[in-house]
Amino acid sequence: MTQTSDGPVTKLTVRPPGRPRSERADRAIIEATVDLLAEEGGVAGVSIEAVAARAAVGKTTIYRRWPNKEALIIDALAALKEPFPVPVGDSVRDDLVAIARAFMTDKSDKKRLDCYWSIMSGAERYPELIARFNREVIEPRRDVIRRVLRRGIESGELRADLDVEVTLWLIMGAVAHRARAWGAGPVPDDFPGKVIDALLAGIGTN
Amino acid sequence: MTQTSDGPVTKLTVRPPGRPRSERADRAIIEATVDLLAEEGGVAGVSIEAVAARAAVGKTTIYRRWPNKEALIIDALAALKEPFPVPVGDSVRDDLVAIARAFMTDKSDKKRLDCYWSIMSGAERYPELIARFNREVIEPRRDVIRRVLRRGIESGELRADLDVEVTLWLIMGAVAHRARAWGAGPVPDDFPGKVIDALLAGIGTN
Repeated sequence: MTQTSDGPVTKLTVRPPGRPRSERADRAIIEATVDLLAEEGGVAGVSIEAVAARAAVGKTTIYRRWPNKEALIIDALAALKEPFPVPVGDSVRDDLVAIARAFMTDKSDKKRLDCYWSIMSGAERYPELIARFNREVIEPRRDVIRRVLRRGIESGELRADLDVEVTLWLIMGAVAHRARAWGAGPVPDDFPGKVIDALLAGIGTN
Repeated sequence: MTQTSDGPVTKLTVRPPGRPRSERADRAIIEATVDLLAEEGGVAGVSIEAVAARAAVGKTTIYRRWPNKEALIIDALAALKEPFPVPVGDSVRDDLVAIARAFMTDKSDKKRLDCYWSIMSGAERYPELIARFNREVIEPRRDVIRRVLRRGIESGELRADLDVEVTLWLIMGAVAHRARAWGAGPVPDDFPGKVIDALLAGIGTN
């Protein structure tokens, strides 16, 4: 029996195994979009028709949730990002390590990487799409890091004169660059912790 | 008159304007290879024939210098890298800033970026090429940084307990990641200096 939310009639309902139908369809749609982005080499290879066919849904199902191709691609790209941890709020060091870990793109996930490379190499062809993705997905993630850094300044764990933006790039860059480096091998599990601890300690002697 | 190096006869020689013929040909060959890598989307699009045609040289001219396509591609990829500065040897801080600056890929150089993205997205198809490029081009550059860091430890400018590898990724990653970031705008000229100074000072208070 399916769960219904219509009206006051109480029915004996049994939740079907798995996710509700619309969630399954949404996941299929997003996966189909990611696949097409990766296979077809970018944005031009994606159409609502092609996504609908690949996801085995009707186009109206897609339009119910995404008003246009751009919105769908934004969500597909967002789905490729490693979810950001919610800062626990105790140790700033531990929160930064957890965040740094989110930048360790798994190089074995070829589809995801192909997708990103193809988007990036064509980014200048779709400036509005990229700007929107930046605004809706990327910058909010960076804001999480900025807030943790500011919290650390307030709590006295971090220097009051630290440069938030530069620190942001040091954290994100060290892990992201290492994770994508050719021939550098898999990233050791303790790498994010070592990055944050090195940054906390500093390398100078003055 | 052309300069000749045959025999003992002294001729009045005038060096032609510009570079010697072989250097010009080599530059044309490398440029043609880069162009083809960028346009054809990767290694498969490059053949000695195609390079010869694009560079307007004979294939023998290419083979005189490069024994095979792999060697040529390695040099072409190397030509895309920003030349590394030779460390001056005084202030470790200044040497690190100059090195960090070399990671500020100019995003306006679209050809260069297209080339890199296409190689990277296909890297797993050419593991030997990538391994060789890593060995011959990338690791020596990283060794320059490692030597500067060790020099700093010896001189007392840097902490004796610093982690050379982690510091390497902090330096390279912060600038490279920032330079390629979508929507983050051009990299300010003082960014490499700020990165190194932040790293020297550390962000913690303990």
